Amino acid sequence: MRTIGFACTSAEEDLTPFHFDRRNPRANDVVMEILYCGVCHSDLHWARNDWGHTAYPTVPGHEIVGRVIEAGPDVTRHKVGDIVAVGCMVDSCLECDQCRKGDEQYCREGKKQPLGMNGTYGGIDIFDNTPNMGGYSKHLVVRQEFALKVPEGLDIAKAAPLLCAGVTTWSPLRTWQAGPGKHVAVIGLGGLGQMAVKLAVALGAEVTVISRSDKKKQEALALGADRLLASSNEKAMQEAADSFDLIIDTVPVEHDITPYLPLLDIDGTIAMVGQIGPLPPSSSLPLVYGRRRIAGSLIGGIRETQELLDFCARKNILPDTKTIAMQDINAAFAELQKGDSHYRFVIDMSTLKAD
Amino acid sequence: MRTIGFACTSAEEDLTPFHFDRRNPRANDVVMEILYCGVCHSDLHWARNDWGHTAYPTVPGHEIVGRVIEAGPDVTRHKVGDIVAVGCMVDSCLECDQCRKGDEQYCREGKKQPLGMNGTYGGIDIFDNTPNMGGYSKHLVVRQEFALKVPEGLDIAKAAPLLCAGVTTWSPLRTWQAGPGKHVAVIGLGGLGQMAVKLAVALGAEVTVISRSDKKKQEALALGADRLLASSNEKAMQEAADSFDLIIDTVPVEHDITPYLPLLDIDGTIAMVGQIGPLPPSSSLPLVYGRRRIAGSLIGGIRETQELLDFCARKNILPDTKTIAMQDINAAFAELQKGDSHYRFVIDMSTLKAD
Repeated sequence: MRTIGFACTSAEEDLTPFHFDRRNPRANDVVMEILYCGVCHSDLHWARNDWGHTAYPTVPGHEIVGRVIEAGPDVTRHKVGDIVAVGCMVDSCLECDQCRKGDEQYCREGKKQPLGMNGTYGGIDIFDNTPNMGGYSKHLVVRQEFALKVPEGLDIAKAAPLLCAGVTTWSPLRTWQAGPGKHVAVIGLGGLGQMAVKLAVALGAEVTVISRSDKKKQEALALGADRLLASSNEKAMQEAADSFDLIIDTVPVEHDITPYLPLLDIDGTIAMVGQIGPLPPSSSLPLVYGRRRIAGSLIGGIRETQELLDFCARKNILPDTKTIAMQDINAAFAELQKGDSHYRFVIDMSTLKAD
Repeated sequence: MRTIGFACTSAEEDLTPFHFDRRNPRANDVVMEILYCGVCHSDLHWARNDWGHTAYPTVPGHEIVGRVIEAGPDVTRHKVGDIVAVGCMVDSCLECDQCRKGDEQYCREGKKQPLGMNGTYGGIDIFDNTPNMGGYSKHLVVRQEFALKVPEGLDIAKAAPLLCAGVTTWSPLRTWQAGPGKHVAVIGLGGLGQMAVKLAVALGAEVTVISRSDKKKQEALALGADRLLASSNEKAMQEAADSFDLIIDTVPVEHDITPYLPLLDIDGTIAMVGQIGPLPPSSSLPLVYGRRRIAGSLIGGIRETQELLDFCARKNILPDTKTIAMQDINAAFAELQKGDSHYRFVIDMSTLKAD
């Protein structure tokens, strides 16, 4: 089927309108009219070929909310008119041990794909071998298992970032059992950090934001955190030794985690979700003396994402967003590149005209 | 009470006979006649002041097996004539959360001691503030909770290294649930590595030894391992990707763990037990893509140590040891310093004459 999106044609060019074909829906597919699509920093990395394997032209976007306008004959989970959402993956084998336990993001087959999963963009369709095109687009065709149900009551104009930023922090909070009685720290207050704080607070954990200075204290408290710990304050850092069961590290650039390790309580874990790449030298001492752990975590599975959407609807948790028109994407990318945004951009796809 | 041991009086001197006073037994103490004491690489580090805070004179030794020759009026666990054992700790607060769950090695009070625990040597008695003296000695006075029961059937001439080398590998094997269906790798085949292999095999895990070359293959198989993986064999390393639930890293010197991370399966853990100190640069990529974990582990708790002794008696597992006389300790240290021993030295304390 013919549709329109905004695509990059090279690492240097702005995104421009792009007419292309989606596959015709298979028996197990739904066709979505995309209503909103979040703008993730990964979209920018992908568009700019920062990871070195972007195939152009490409349509970014993996925080997608839309309406079902067509459903194949085998579709049982969704019907025409349903509001559904798609995150970072559009497929997985559904048969390996990881898929069976709901960790499709670690699918043994998906691992062989360029992005380490069958990405909403960057992935390759396993039936027709064509590159997947993302959500900066009017329509999406996707197999029913990878379309989440958007619960009533969730503001669909703001929900899109839950599909990536949300589940990326939700998954480690659930894996390491953040909840009442647990002490959780969040490093960084960008898009991921803000979600991590809101979700950890809503899960009932005691939440500390770790930031370089006290500058973001009001923001941290406004998000529901109990306190801010300034990493530049040596005395405060010493006093915070052994105090966190879980640290969610959302810092998106290479950084030294050594100062944070002693903050973990015995058996505590620091989960890296922001930066993927070089890990500077550190020390095994706080690991051995305290059985502490350095871990990573990659988005989340489909069941977990559904759980998150339901949780956010029930608790009325939404990311801080700024709605933009499709033609403003290049300006948004430029702002994102500068960093330090206090909101996630969400594209209102009604601004993308079909002709 | 007066006793004799072998002490170091400085970092440069050989160990020499040393007459000193043990405390008179308190109501809750047992007095042990030491029969055997293992020689641990830590003893050598301590004797040579490698950690920078050795207080001389000092008596090393924390793998101790002996006979109860006196028991205070409050002692209920042991009686005169019992064969008991003491490991790396002789005390802890027994009241903090860690002690209550049986992790006395992470005791909140013990943490304040020079060695991070109330060490059998290196520790300071919390009642009389005197430095603890270790097991290269004729007698030991210890509170009953830190004396383990040596089960009948365990060869007491060989059991001593279980108290440190044994439990240091047993504890992470238990924490990360090595057993049937689990794939465990052991890096290094020194004292710790040999124990790790024997214990993991006895727990029913599938066990791989990771060594630089194939040179130690026969030794690995003789210990019960299923295979040896040569880390210098690039193809074999690639084929072993994603295959281990747990890697026990016993390498005692600074080393790069990066090549081992991709060998871990999803949600797998590498537990460092050999080297305490600098961790060279690595990458967060295998952590994020696979939720893998880098952890450390410190000896084990009292309950875990008892469990190990009982397990080893039941399964007839013993370290490979070489019995030496007390006066041979300096030669043993010299050999230990050279590394690559295929056995643990155990001092037969009957060779230490009281006068």
